[in-house]
Amino acid sequence: MAKNKKLVEEITSMEEDFAQWYTDVVKKAELVSYSSVKGCMIIRPYGYAIWENIQKEMDSRFKETGVENVYMPMFIPESLLQKEKDHVEGFAPEVAWVTHGGQEKLQERLCVRPTSETLFCDHYSEVIQSYRDLPKLYNQWCSVVRWEKTTRPFLRSTEFLWQEGHTAHATAEEAEERTIQMLNVYADFCEKVLAIPMIKGQKTEKEKFAGAHQTYTIEALMHDGKALQSGTSHNFGDGFARAFDIQYTDKNNNLQYVHQTSWGVSTRIIGAIIMVHGDNSGLVLPPRIAPTQVMIIPIAQHKEGVLDKAYELKDTLKSFRVKVDDSDKSPGWKFSEQEMRGIPIRIEIGPRDIEANQAIIARRDTGEKITVSLDNIEEEVNNILEKMQVDMLEKARNHRDANTSTVTSYDEFKDVIENKQGFVKAMWCGDLACEEKIKEDTGATSRCIPFEQEQIADTCVCCGKEAKHMVYWGKAY
Amino acid sequence: MAKNKKLVEEITSMEEDFAQWYTDVVKKAELVSYSSVKGCMIIRPYGYAIWENIQKEMDSRFKETGVENVYMPMFIPESLLQKEKDHVEGFAPEVAWVTHGGQEKLQERLCVRPTSETLFCDHYSEVIQSYRDLPKLYNQWCSVVRWEKTTRPFLRSTEFLWQEGHTAHATAEEAEERTIQMLNVYADFCEKVLAIPMIKGQKTEKEKFAGAHQTYTIEALMHDGKALQSGTSHNFGDGFARAFDIQYTDKNNNLQYVHQTSWGVSTRIIGAIIMVHGDNSGLVLPPRIAPTQVMIIPIAQHKEGVLDKAYELKDTLKSFRVKVDDSDKSPGWKFSEQEMRGIPIRIEIGPRDIEANQAIIARRDTGEKITVSLDNIEEEVNNILEKMQVDMLEKARNHRDANTSTVTSYDEFKDVIENKQGFVKAMWCGDLACEEKIKEDTGATSRCIPFEQEQIADTCVCCGKEAKHMVYWGKAY
Repeated sequence: MAKNKKLVEEITSMEEDFAQWYTDVVKKAELVSYSSVKGCMIIRPYGYAIWENIQKEMDSRFKETGVENVYMPMFIPESLLQKEKDHVEGFAPEVAWVTHGGQEKLQERLCVRPTSETLFCDHYSEVIQSYRDLPKLYNQWCSVVRWEKTTRPFLRSTEFLWQEGHTAHATAEEAEERTIQMLNVYADFCEKVLAIPMIKGQKTEKEKFAGAHQTYTIEALMHDGKALQSGTSHNFGDGFARAFDIQYTDKNNNLQYVHQTSWGVSTRIIGAIIMVHGDNSGLVLPPRIAPTQVMIIPIAQHKEGVLDKAYELKDTLKSFRVKVDDSDKSPGWKFSEQEMRGIPIRIEIGPRDIEANQAIIARRDTGEKITVSLDNIEEEVNNILEKMQVDMLEKARNHRDANTSTVTSYDEFKDVIENKQGFVKAMWCGDLACEEKIKEDTGATSRCIPFEQEQIADTCVCCGKEAKHMVYWGKAY
Repeated sequence: MAKNKKLVEEITSMEEDFAQWYTDVVKKAELVSYSSVKGCMIIRPYGYAIWENIQKEMDSRFKETGVENVYMPMFIPESLLQKEKDHVEGFAPEVAWVTHGGQEKLQERLCVRPTSETLFCDHYSEVIQSYRDLPKLYNQWCSVVRWEKTTRPFLRSTEFLWQEGHTAHATAEEAEERTIQMLNVYADFCEKVLAIPMIKGQKTEKEKFAGAHQTYTIEALMHDGKALQSGTSHNFGDGFARAFDIQYTDKNNNLQYVHQTSWGVSTRIIGAIIMVHGDNSGLVLPPRIAPTQVMIIPIAQHKEGVLDKAYELKDTLKSFRVKVDDSDKSPGWKFSEQEMRGIPIRIEIGPRDIEANQAIIARRDTGEKITVSLDNIEEEVNNILEKMQVDMLEKARNHRDANTSTVTSYDEFKDVIENKQGFVKAMWCGDLACEEKIKEDTGATSRCIPFEQEQIADTCVCCGKEAKHMVYWGKAY
């Protein structure tokens, strides 16, 4: 078991240095690799397999709500980017510019899309004529580029993968409904599939998306007490429609502007999976998203019948995503790799187990080991995977709740952020000045005005004036 | 039926102007739309749904052979692109260059990937150390950019979607095996799923990929007698490995260079589907790739019970990709749209049909109409879809064979290319001079040296010297 110990020792413990632990895990679990291109990551097979599962699950949920996928160009001409004033101000400072095609200098610079509102609007202005053409419910899976100074795998990189939904509606009400609907799709997906509980709410004016009337967000709490914005949904009202002249003829033959939304989730969510569920042995993956759910590790595999039995067991368990590690590494090393990669269930099977018609199941999240009969192992594995999925959500919710503080005084606020971390629930007057002062004094930002409001106090935690909203605050990634 | 006629009249007939017919079909069937970005197309929901089906089918075939998906950066630093001499010469003239990130000028230009050999090699040089790390069988689905002067939807565009597989092997033999294996996967997919028969063969020195030792290709014949290169598979030998220093320690502890392959199919294949199967009513989609396989069109849908019966029928046929067109358009208009979009089966159901417990099935490829009982309609639909898939391949193969000429003299060669078009099978001495002369004299290029060789004659069709190979020639897209 010496090698087992060694592999685990190679990762820094969470308690010692959380940032280093994160970096160690993404590398040792072989999720990403650094590339020759500054700020861009290579997503390796294991990391990409997680993303594929995320895509499959999300895409089918989108399609159930009537969404269709499309593909827009990756380039945006500078003049098109500039059509909506707030939008260009928000994005122009952080885009990559293409200036040459082959040997020739371009007449107009093209930026590599940082997001595609402008392209969708340009297209909508062409294809939307009448109320019969509405709603348009489009989405695309693609990569986008934002020129970042400091980058971290999954959390912040120059190029990242995401989906961006863009919809156009006849009325303001429909657009608002869709904005909330997609936020709910995201939150439900995160809870049910990723086992990550989310706070749903609205962003403040200061924190909303460039060009949006309203931005809604789902916020999760990481193991180190920092918040991670995990997905956003924007209601644009008719702002983009006016800038891009997207009008339709209604049933009474009057010209009307459409109302639009956009919503996105990116590979950043993989960072959330790592930082919510991971531990000092590496990654811990919720069963529903794990590329491999069950790893069978034969013990003394050189002995007659052991490998055969392992393959037979794999066949018995074929309704799960199951593999046999039949490499020539030691069992200890294999255990360690399976743990590092966060594979939910390990099954150990050796000569003595075979004789006793049994195998040993080890749960990745709790470390618990159970001896089960081979006669009903399929049912057992199914039960354990289902229980693990539920338990992991429960554990994450308990951690979040234990790290959420309700404060009514500014001193308390500062004390919590400095000494305890986590979410802080506090009242706010709604003024930008207080939001900025809180950020300057504590480093915490407003995460959201949650849909579930509580009347903690009557006055703003910062200025003491009448409070308008209860807000979640926290330090964030 | 006036409107029906009108919509069809809007497309130019194939016989009158094939190029215009193609453009009309891609626009009227709503596959693509032009964008504000020169040479870049927007893939609309219907076009993208075809691509999604292609991806799903191909991806599962790749994975069956052990391939894993990854994601590489979209940018390549100029110095990295330059590492392999032939490769950079082939691609540098047609890449888009990023020179600025935000407000700052970059120290080194980045090109937007035209293909990703250099990035995969750079990564392989880092992750491959020992024979245990081999083979590496990676693939990615992404978009690439090549700065084209003249563009056409799907066939040639500045940006296009594709998959690029990149593998690394311990031996030259394994690399060659994988190169051929993937070509066979492509050809089999095209025949079984897209109903397009392919000629498999090797590219000549002149036509091979920049940096490859050997390029293999699948070539299809379009309805107008032109060829379309539909997929390629390259064996790089150890050329890239030497340029990027990708070495591994073999079992005897000696350092060895790896042997590599790459292989790709792009959205260009959608152009092949259109030009092989389409007709003067629009698109004709093979059932296995059609986003909608069955369109139910209610007749006199305002009459009581008609729509209910249509929805009931949809439910009966739910094992297929089925829709009901319950819009307020006329049946004639709906027929025309279903035909334009190439939906394999149309089912007409009206009050008299309901009374007689029957419906009318119209086959898109033949126009044939059959009255079937509602009691066994599921089985009928299944049989027709399966038959259509087989018949479409048969029809395409017959068209290709009828448009393939075997020639033994140069006059005959020129006559066929000028007056008949199609594939020309002729002997070749293997000299570049003859290949270039044929291109200059006739406009035809060597499509491939087919795996299935025939000894048509002993001498080169061009120079009369001893022949080395039988070659397929043709004008190509």
